[in-house]
Amino acid sequence: MKDFFKVIDLDKVFEYISLFETVETEEISLKNTHWRILAENIIADADLPPFLRSTMDGYAVCASSTFGASEENPAYLNVAGQIAMGETPSFSVMQGEAARISTGGMLPNGADSVVMIEHTEILDEKTIEIYKSIAPGHNIIEKGEDFLKGNVMLAKGRRIRPQETGLLAAFGIEKVKVYKKPVISIISTGDEVVPVSKIPRFGQIRDINSYTLSDQVAEAGGIPLTFGIVKDNYNNLLDICKKALLESDMVLISGGSSVGARDFTIEVLSNLPDSEIIVHGISISPGKPTILARSGKKAIWGIPGHVVSAMVVFTAVVKPFIEKISGNNLQPNIPSISAQLTRNIASAQGRTDYIRVRLTEEEGIVLAEPVLGKSGLINTMVKADGFIKIGVNTEGLEKGSMVRVIFQ
Amino acid sequence: MKDFFKVIDLDKVFEYISLFETVETEEISLKNTHWRILAENIIADADLPPFLRSTMDGYAVCASSTFGASEENPAYLNVAGQIAMGETPSFSVMQGEAARISTGGMLPNGADSVVMIEHTEILDEKTIEIYKSIAPGHNIIEKGEDFLKGNVMLAKGRRIRPQETGLLAAFGIEKVKVYKKPVISIISTGDEVVPVSKIPRFGQIRDINSYTLSDQVAEAGGIPLTFGIVKDNYNNLLDICKKALLESDMVLISGGSSVGARDFTIEVLSNLPDSEIIVHGISISPGKPTILARSGKKAIWGIPGHVVSAMVVFTAVVKPFIEKISGNNLQPNIPSISAQLTRNIASAQGRTDYIRVRLTEEEGIVLAEPVLGKSGLINTMVKADGFIKIGVNTEGLEKGSMVRVIFQ
Repeated sequence: MKDFFKVIDLDKVFEYISLFETVETEEISLKNTHWRILAENIIADADLPPFLRSTMDGYAVCASSTFGASEENPAYLNVAGQIAMGETPSFSVMQGEAARISTGGMLPNGADSVVMIEHTEILDEKTIEIYKSIAPGHNIIEKGEDFLKGNVMLAKGRRIRPQETGLLAAFGIEKVKVYKKPVISIISTGDEVVPVSKIPRFGQIRDINSYTLSDQVAEAGGIPLTFGIVKDNYNNLLDICKKALLESDMVLISGGSSVGARDFTIEVLSNLPDSEIIVHGISISPGKPTILARSGKKAIWGIPGHVVSAMVVFTAVVKPFIEKISGNNLQPNIPSISAQLTRNIASAQGRTDYIRVRLTEEEGIVLAEPVLGKSGLINTMVKADGFIKIGVNTEGLEKGSMVRVIFQ
Repeated sequence: MKDFFKVIDLDKVFEYISLFETVETEEISLKNTHWRILAENIIADADLPPFLRSTMDGYAVCASSTFGASEENPAYLNVAGQIAMGETPSFSVMQGEAARISTGGMLPNGADSVVMIEHTEILDEKTIEIYKSIAPGHNIIEKGEDFLKGNVMLAKGRRIRPQETGLLAAFGIEKVKVYKKPVISIISTGDEVVPVSKIPRFGQIRDINSYTLSDQVAEAGGIPLTFGIVKDNYNNLLDICKKALLESDMVLISGGSSVGARDFTIEVLSNLPDSEIIVHGISISPGKPTILARSGKKAIWGIPGHVVSAMVVFTAVVKPFIEKISGNNLQPNIPSISAQLTRNIASAQGRTDYIRVRLTEEEGIVLAEPVLGKSGLINTMVKADGFIKIGVNTEGLEKGSMVRVIFQ
């Protein structure tokens, strides 16, 4: 086995990631758009709203009919009619007239504003008093004020939140083109790994990674496809990898990327069809022995077997990879939380450290408290609310400094 | 129709919310635990790890065999054997001996530490040199160091992230008791509302809320159950509400809570079996005419019909309500993002304002830029990354002040 182990920086890894292609697209119905990634620009095919709407319960008027009106000196207007919700008004409003209207109602011709009901009083069936002077445009939304016909409302690559779905609904768009969710194969390797249903003998450990990585894949927008445990055997791993490549868009192998005696991962990856080892070793901690390989156009990631390292490497590089091939342009923008560090942290120069932190709050300040304990302990992950990242050129961080907290 | 409209503060609303009961529990399999809420304490039934594990590739030794070793003055140790992954070592390591071990391997009797492979050199089949002096406990995890038998590992009410699932997997827990996802009925009301598939006439608007609220319910951990559009008709709305109460844990009605002419919501809610109007009017903007009612033990929320107001009210009060009845104790802790305000914002005293903001970043500082535009425009929601909340006793916020951004 040749030794490909040559540690590179995170930036370089992201350059390699950017070269992979996005998955294909599909058309889905409006009911299923939540959290999917748009694969087309959405253009307004009409003005929204398509008519002048009231934003208050009150009376539609010509604003000039109210000029000078006050508590002491009210304006008196004739009630020209009442506007039913969902109907086009059958009459106009002239100078000196008013029409009863509800929130969302369509303004009659002639009216350019709405007086709130709270600023009016009914005198008789035909007359109201108005206590306030309003300007044209008051309490209304103009035709096309929300979106103008022909404009791009939502851009390709955007994540669809409830409000984006709402916008599609407003325009009656019942089918949307989105990127397919990439299918991610998950393989656990290691002679010491046994299924969760088995009681491990001394020296053995249950297969945690199939579960944690499946859930992380789902959170990243992928569809996990688990292949269970593959023992450290060259032919077995090669066969399963070939199968996984056929059935999915990316393969994620945990374990077997260290320098251990039975590690066949690199050898297997080198012998896949049209294959190339792109990365073997990243200057991050934990997660240094991470592998990125290619077979055809598909990526295979080899990440450490230990659950904590596997989760950190997933967050650091595999999740951004899945987002890249999902067509996700990371809009809307959700920056990480900033918090104040509660103690000094040392870090080695020349690598990026991922430190688990717990978040607390004191007098309105969010505090990030490093979670103590060896990096091999899963309890450190359970106690942690997120990570902080200490850059490759930093020797450590001082207590009191502001840090960015990222979530897995 | 009696006028129940009496505005109360947000704090009081949360007091009422806290009186509602949580939904029932169910047992689910480990594969389906992601993002569910634990309904039981999880106790360690064994030590984790159950044996002394190596955290490095190297040689298991008695630390004292390495004392004084250095590059200039290496220690020479006899290789007592090699430890296979997943096996209990069949031999012990004495003073002056070493055993080849991989990451995750079980230490043989006698060994109390591991020397990294990088600090050793093979001299011959039976002898290695060690260049570094290590302390007992180096590069190992003790039996029970991650979790001790009998301890509560995860508390009732906790949200299950990938790492919590991993912990359950590590202990072979294949069935977990969680709270059921509450089923939330969603009803759109209003004579002006038409289904998304229809082309609205002038004065009409498509049913956006069934979509936005469904997705918000799902994000809050509930199961949306949509009943479509109910016209402003007393008997229709009463029948649908009764049906919805039977089929779900909470009913969410949008529209019909304003003072408009055809608003039957309050009247309908007052005439449901064993009913009570708990809240009618909250001092928040947008969202003032919000209703909370009770029929038996179930809640009915009446929220404004306009999509923007409906989304804000959902985030402000309905989401916390769904979390409460879901048994969610809001652990782990994800505080909101803090950001610097880019301009002055005025706000009326005596109410809580929800202002939509867009997040940007300049020189490492996260900036919150208020989204301009009337509150009735859905484009303000689409442009926004989140909200800021201006408290009931604040008259406004100054440019440059730090604000908390919450996400819907």
